[in-house]
Amino acid sequence: MTTPANTAPNPRRVGIWIIGALGSVSGTVALGLALADASTQSGMVTAMPPFAPLQLDSLSSFTVGGHDIRPGTLFDSVLLLHERSRLFTYQQLSQSQPTLEQWSANIRPGVILAANPTIVNMSDSRRVQAVATPRQAIAAIQADLQAFQRDQQLDQVVVVNLASTEPPFEAGDMHQSLELLQAQLDTTDRVILPTSSLYAYAAIDLGMPYVNFTPSTGSSLPALEELTRLRKTVVAGKDGKTGETLLKTALAPMFAQRNLQVLSWVGYNILGNRDGQVLHDPANKASKVKTKDAVLASILGYRPQSQVAIEYIESLDDWKTAWDHIHFEGFLGTKMVMQLTWQGADSILAAPLVLDLARLTLFAQRRGEVGILSHLACFFKSPMGSNVHELARQWQLLEAYLASCV
Amino acid sequence: MTTPANTAPNPRRVGIWIIGALGSVSGTVALGLALADASTQSGMVTAMPPFAPLQLDSLSSFTVGGHDIRPGTLFDSVLLLHERSRLFTYQQLSQSQPTLEQWSANIRPGVILAANPTIVNMSDSRRVQAVATPRQAIAAIQADLQAFQRDQQLDQVVVVNLASTEPPFEAGDMHQSLELLQAQLDTTDRVILPTSSLYAYAAIDLGMPYVNFTPSTGSSLPALEELTRLRKTVVAGKDGKTGETLLKTALAPMFAQRNLQVLSWVGYNILGNRDGQVLHDPANKASKVKTKDAVLASILGYRPQSQVAIEYIESLDDWKTAWDHIHFEGFLGTKMVMQLTWQGADSILAAPLVLDLARLTLFAQRRGEVGILSHLACFFKSPMGSNVHELARQWQLLEAYLASCV
Amino acid sequence: MTTPANTAPNPRRVGIWIIGALGSVSGTVALGLALADASTQSGMVTAMPPFAPLQLDSLSSFTVGGHDIRPGTLFDSVLLLHERSRLFTYQQLSQSQPTLEQWSANIRPGVILAANPTIVNMSDSRRVQAVATPRQAIAAIQADLQAFQRDQQLDQVVVVNLASTEPPFEAGDMHQSLELLQAQLDTTDRVILPTSSLYAYAAIDLGMPYVNFTPSTGSSLPALEELTRLRKTVVAGKDGKTGETLLKTALAPMFAQRNLQVLSWVGYNILGNRDGQVLHDPANKASKVKTKDAVLASILGYRPQSQVAIEYIESLDDWKTAWDHIHFEGFLGTKMVMQLTWQGADSILAAPLVLDLARLTLFAQRRGEVGILSHLACFFKSPMGSNVHELARQWQLLEAYLASCV
Amino acid sequence: MTTPANTAPNPRRVGIWIIGALGSVSGTVALGLALADASTQSGMVTAMPPFAPLQLDSLSSFTVGGHDIRPGTLFDSVLLLHERSRLFTYQQLSQSQPTLEQWSANIRPGVILAANPTIVNMSDSRRVQAVATPRQAIAAIQADLQAFQRDQQLDQVVVVNLASTEPPFEAGDMHQSLELLQAQLDTTDRVILPTSSLYAYAAIDLGMPYVNFTPSTGSSLPALEELTRLRKTVVAGKDGKTGETLLKTALAPMFAQRNLQVLSWVGYNILGNRDGQVLHDPANKASKVKTKDAVLASILGYRPQSQVAIEYIESLDDWKTAWDHIHFEGFLGTKMVMQLTWQGADSILAAPLVLDLARLTLFAQRRGEVGILSHLACFFKSPMGSNVHELARQWQLLEAYLASCV
Ligand SMILES: NC(=O)c1ccc[n+]([C@@H]2O[C@H](COP(=O)([O-])OP(=O)(O)OC[C@H]3O[C@@H](n4cnc5c(N)ncnc54)[C@H](O)[C@@H]3O)[C@@H](O)[C@H]2O)c1
Ligand SMILES: NC(=O)c1ccc[n+]([C@@H]2O[C@H](COP(=O)([O-])OP(=O)(O)OC[C@H]3O[C@@H](n4cnc5c(N)ncnc54)[C@H](O)[C@@H]3O)[C@@H](O)[C@H]2O)c1
Ligand SMILES: NC(=O)c1ccc[n+]([C@@H]2O[C@H](COP(=O)([O-])OP(=O)(O)OC[C@H]3O[C@@H](n4cnc5c(N)ncnc54)[C@H](O)[C@@H]3O)[C@@H](O)[C@H]2O)c1
Ligand SMILES: NC(=O)c1ccc[n+]([C@@H]2O[C@H](COP(=O)([O-])OP(=O)(O)OC[C@H]3O[C@@H](n4cnc5c(N)ncnc54)[C@H](O)[C@@H]3O)[C@@H](O)[C@H]2O)c1
Ligand code: NA
Ligand code: NA
Repeated sequence: MTTPANTAPNPRRVGIWIIGALGSVSGTVALGLALADASTQSGMVTAMPPFAPLQLDSLSSFTVGGHDIRPGTLFDSVLLLHERSRLFTYQQLSQSQPTLEQWSANIRPGVILAANPTIVNMSDSRRVQAVATPRQAIAAIQADLQAFQRDQQLDQVVVVNLASTEPPFEAGDMHQSLELLQAQLDTTDRVILPTSSLYAYAAIDLGMPYVNFTPSTGSSLPALEELTRLRKTVVAGKDGKTGETLLKTALAPMFAQRNLQVLSWVGYNILGNRDGQVLHDPANKASKVKTKDAVLASILGYRPQSQVAIEYIESLDDWKTAWDHIHFEGFLGTKMVMQLTWQGADSILAAPLVLDLARLTLFAQRRGEVGILSHLACFFKSPMGSNVHELARQWQLLEAYLASCV
Repeated sequence: MTTPANTAPNPRRVGIWIIGALGSVSGTVALGLALADASTQSGMVTAMPPFAPLQLDSLSSFTVGGHDIRPGTLFDSVLLLHERSRLFTYQQLSQSQPTLEQWSANIRPGVILAANPTIVNMSDSRRVQAVATPRQAIAAIQADLQAFQRDQQLDQVVVVNLASTEPPFEAGDMHQSLELLQAQLDTTDRVILPTSSLYAYAAIDLGMPYVNFTPSTGSSLPALEELTRLRKTVVAGKDGKTGETLLKTALAPMFAQRNLQVLSWVGYNILGNRDGQVLHDPANKASKVKTKDAVLASILGYRPQSQVAIEYIESLDDWKTAWDHIHFEGFLGTKMVMQLTWQGADSILAAPLVLDLARLTLFAQRRGEVGILSHLACFFKSPMGSNVHELARQWQLLEAYLASCV
Repeated sequence: MTTPANTAPNPRRVGIWIIGALGSVSGTVALGLALADASTQSGMVTAMPPFAPLQLDSLSSFTVGGHDIRPGTLFDSVLLLHERSRLFTYQQLSQSQPTLEQWSANIRPGVILAANPTIVNMSDSRRVQAVATPRQAIAAIQADLQAFQRDQQLDQVVVVNLASTEPPFEAGDMHQSLELLQAQLDTTDRVILPTSSLYAYAAIDLGMPYVNFTPSTGSSLPALEELTRLRKTVVAGKDGKTGETLLKTALAPMFAQRNLQVLSWVGYNILGNRDGQVLHDPANKASKVKTKDAVLASILGYRPQSQVAIEYIESLDDWKTAWDHIHFEGFLGTKMVMQLTWQGADSILAAPLVLDLARLTLFAQRRGEVGILSHLACFFKSPMGSNVHELARQWQLLEAYLASCV
Repeated sequence: MTTPANTAPNPRRVGIWIIGALGSVSGTVALGLALADASTQSGMVTAMPPFAPLQLDSLSSFTVGGHDIRPGTLFDSVLLLHERSRLFTYQQLSQSQPTLEQWSANIRPGVILAANPTIVNMSDSRRVQAVATPRQAIAAIQADLQAFQRDQQLDQVVVVNLASTEPPFEAGDMHQSLELLQAQLDTTDRVILPTSSLYAYAAIDLGMPYVNFTPSTGSSLPALEELTRLRKTVVAGKDGKTGETLLKTALAPMFAQRNLQVLSWVGYNILGNRDGQVLHDPANKASKVKTKDAVLASILGYRPQSQVAIEYIESLDDWKTAWDHIHFEGFLGTKMVMQLTWQGADSILAAPLVLDLARLTLFAQRRGEVGILSHLACFFKSPMGSNVHELARQWQLLEAYLASCV
């Protein structure tokens, strides 16, 4: 295993704990960590020279663990991606297999208190921990996290949410302060927190950095923000910006800066992986469409007719394919057209950003930062703690942060 | 005629003198000025609110004149665009006709000293002024410019190069200083200046602002920069950034900021207007491909395999259509694809930027600025006085300028 | 008015009566008939040499009339298409205006017995005939048809349905025979026939050829087929094949003949004209998606995952734009991709086929043919009297018919 | 090894001898034969039910051999395709490896008498047989062919040309009859036959069926046709129709049958495999562009402006990507656009057709057919013995042949 650039000289031992550990993105993250060679540089923002002075944790200093609600191993996940989506070469697969099998032993049954039927149906009851209240769920999760840190002798552990997207959750009064929320943790007769927030609570309460790569609620409740400050840890989220939205935030400013009126922006996404299957359920899809749709109006300053459709087309597997049709008006009322198609392997796009976020949150916590890391806005569709959406401006926030660190 | 926003309260009278006055872009500029209504707002950068404090010249304060080497009127040009490319509505055409016919009387025969065969063939000898030396050419041009300003009682005149693209010109020692250049102005046995530079010389020497919207040489010679400072005027150029290159400078930073390695970027442009016909001549095309190709390496920091083809396909007329195929590598060596097609009416995209440049150079000169206006980089494929290519960063240069003006 | 090729030497006077006379397709049909010059040849199948021997009615022998439920003139319709979709040139508009205004006097208020809310909302009550029973509706329509034929002194009249698409209609027992149906024509308490079938009944009962260019029911009921034979007239339908489906029936056979397994075929259509607005209502859209979807399975012999979405995007107006993503499997399980985009002006594509159908049905009736004209399958998405969908095979049916006529 | 459908009950032993045995298509052919399982059905025309009655040779009855001018094994070729183009799964590779290594022993050094520099540079002198005259070359080739048939105990051997494309060759008087040609076979001072024709001569002279899957000359000379009849064997060619041309011959008839005038058809192909590299040489490219360009005029009956560009873009490897922009005119002179992109793995598309052709030519010869097999037109860009280009009509020729065989 070679050590890629931009890493600390004396590697500490760190852990990445993944909620949704047997998913596609998680498998790709683990495969990248197991290889930690030149092929893991592309797509990773923190592998670029400007990040070298930060001496972030090297890829080879990471150990993988996590929760999932289905059986299997990390190697099973990547082999399936290979067979259905032709990702990874034979050499990569055979080289990483031993490490992946070893890390698979760190994967523990998850919790699904309050999950919706699509997710429950997907789960295997033998891989789900029986818990009756939010408090019990949090305790069970924390026991696993602590065992991981202790058994693997890790200096620091970051928790990353890569579980299936949940339906939108409406926050209420009890979510406005930690005290109010804690008073309800024994409730059994209704859903007071979505599953993603139970995991977030557990991690933050242990003082671990928490990254929400999904559109689910996770730590984005005032009560959990309070907990974050109380436990002196950091959080970042939400919903990794990997495909069509990334493009929109790079392209829409061009129309704004040329005063070309966007008449309509139609986006049609098709994909066939498990994530696509979960998003096929209208309830779960709603979260995703919401984070995707806000971006345009924010950048343009007006709301053109827009459509963001996501359809599950099985044969595409991990190859998320998007068609965008942008109809715009120029001088003298002339209508013109720009179209684009994007063919990206979703897990391949997401995994290196997960590694970036793991490295940057671990680093921030070590530096003594606390709370929402708004300088990480460029990684997210719905950046917490920031309303900047233009990719170029988000990039400058990150550059300014880098400058402030050295 | 209504007055669009962002214009001065007491309109002065200004002139725009167009080299290539009977071309497609020129006709569209003139049509826009003749209408000066709500339909002229889209696509015009200076029509946006941040420019209001500058009190730029209103569209209705402009008078049009220019040089060309072919017969015809401004109305003929726009009617042809309507018939072949379905640009403009009946109402726009009938409403603008009287003004366009009137302005057509201001169009004077041009000069083609040193032009290449493709351009000479296109010209009509009765519409070309007989001149034997560079000095005579400059004098003839200046006589026309002065007559226009005097007869139309104009406070200020800006000269814009919208003539057919010339082949690339290799600058030599004599172009390094004004003194050396002036010593050669009576040369008859070889080409010492391309035609575009003769026009530029004439304009600058009269202290008029000069804009080069084409990739031709124009004022981009050290000797002419010297003349610009001497005559206390301003210049901007070169090659209007309206289509595929605009897109590249908006999109390429996204790949850089995500550390996605661009493996190849293939651009294939097809168009069928007169400009396309001129670019069909490999000599003339060379200038264009050159300004288009440099951009990518400058933004990415490395040179991916790239192709920029331009083909003349008659039926497309003004509808420049481009296909870009971007092949990039992500995590673990996975190759992914983004494709885009652009269907833009070239003249419609160019004309409002010409108006922006006319307004901003007139304004800068009035403010006492002198020399190359590098804050106008966002308008050009090869910005003079700047090596910033990312659209977002160019935009910030313009924003900073706006802030400095108020 | 010049006479295009392939027409009879001594023109008879014929009429085309359009249900939906003020719609986009109708306006384009009328404009084409008013011009009847070289510009009307492209897109018209019967303008090709093989049709010359049939001596079909010349375009200049047609007079236009029809029903609609909204106010306006044929010229209003085409001017709106010009302004919103940049169809037609100034010369075409000004030249056709007098004829279009004259024909507009032949347009009569329609009936909307049993129409769905989307269509009722669109109508203007002053342009709707008050009728209480199916029998009254049929009588009112027939009075208009007879007056048109008599007043305009027409040898023959063809009735074409170009009205807005209705929701799907479930045929029952009473539609299986003419006798049963006629017994119900005074029903007032429920819908026994969709509006399109009332018009079809009226036309067929008068012995006029009837063409259904829409997916609505029209004459496609056993009882009306019986009436067709009884009155010795001819019918053709349904749903003009102009865009994405046309492409599918040309392309899908290629995949079949190469044994390339189509894994998924995703079609996404956007358009912004009134037809798009009506199809926006899920009830009306259902009819369209149904006729579009059957085609693929019929050609391939199996049913790949397929999607046919139609969305109303206002800015596109008449420019129906479709993206098709075809995912197919080749040798050794390799997945490959073909994508296409189609940008067609819907009315421009439809109008010449309407003229073809008018000419060919008038011709067939004159020859003594009776019933459903199955040799016209190539014109329709859901060909009546035929289950041949491959365009190439449909074309051969038409060629065989031509051969049999001479 | 399972036996796919449509094969003879008592398998005979047959051989496929490939000129260009170490190329990409050849490797894929061999891999398919080594697997001969369900994954080899897709893309193979003769695997479809209508071919069952012919009892063609089963895939498992084939043995592979051939000529090449570079070192390596069949497994090397497919592994490279896997690594650069992500073709084939790990399981396919590991399962086929033993058979591929065994067949590699049947690969013999080739001849390059008269090849052009691009091909000579690519060759390894140790893998080229030293021959001085055409007659010697033919003899050397024949010795290899006979040894293969004898050593492998094959009932029948088909020779397929899959070597790199040669520059166009101008046939002269001596190629008009066998007698004239044979008189020149000892010529040493100039090129009397391209290399592909030497191979063709050798095969045909031994009475072996010969398939030319490339645009090179091969057997397409009157003298070689004479030899074919004399030796009672069969030939088919030329230039496998696998991508953009396949699409053109499926789609262009649609425009013809709708009388939609094609104004321009622009095709831009990019690919990065060795074939692309050879086609990068303008001399070799000329052959390809020629066979691609003729098709359109033949189907439409007129010659629209057309472009067929092929560029070598290394990163694409085997993934030939094509953009087609079709500009067409409809009713009233309206211009409309259809665009398509094709992303096909060239070898994957070609290999199953090579197997089809091998099976069908072996079958035809067994049946006693002689000469050019014009019923195989659907497989080729420039079908020998046929000027039918429409895919649908070519398909009917094959169907008619099938009907005549049973
Ligand atoms: N480009 C991208 O891939 C991308 C971008 C942004 C966001 N995301 C989000 O990242 C997440 C992961 O994507 P993926 O493609 O790997 O999805 P996936 O479906 O392959 O993986 C999700 C995993 O989460 C597990 N899971 C579900 N509920 C759980 C629970 N309560 N506890 C523990 N595990 C649970 C599932 O069993 C599954 O293994 C999704 O929410 C997706 O929307 C992905
Ligand atoms: N989007 C755009 O349209 C765009 C963008 C960037 C640059 N440009 C450049 O702008 C220029 C104008 O484009 P266009 O589409 O209007 O081209 P055009 O061919 O329609 O017009 C050029 C005109 O210049 C005239 N001309 C040529 N040589 C001349 C001379 N020596 N003196 C006077 N007139 C002369 C020609 O007769 C013609 O009327 C071209 O150089 C083009 O490359 C255009
Ligand atoms: N390419 C094509 O344009 C195409 C292809 C296939 C089918 N079609 C069908 O053709 C029809 C016409 O298309 P369009 O674009 O002209 O639509 P449109 O909406 O512009 O015109 C339809 C007209 O029908 C009128 N109408 C509605 N109900 C009526 C009634 N009961 N009696 C009389 N008039 C009535 C409306 O007022 C309107 O003027 C639609 O059903 C469409 O689905 C069109
Ligand atoms: N879809 C397709 O792949 C397709 C379609 C039509 C035609 N073709 C043609 O098929 C041929 C093979 O394509 P490929 O992709 O496998 O190309 P390739 O370059 O991978 O293989 C060609 C092989 O021919 C060998 N060769 C060259 N000259 C030779 C000689 N004189 N004797 C023996 N071997 C020689 C080369 O060394 C090479 O191994 C090319 O001519 C190509 O144009 C391919
Ligand atoms: Na792809
Ligand atoms: Na268009």
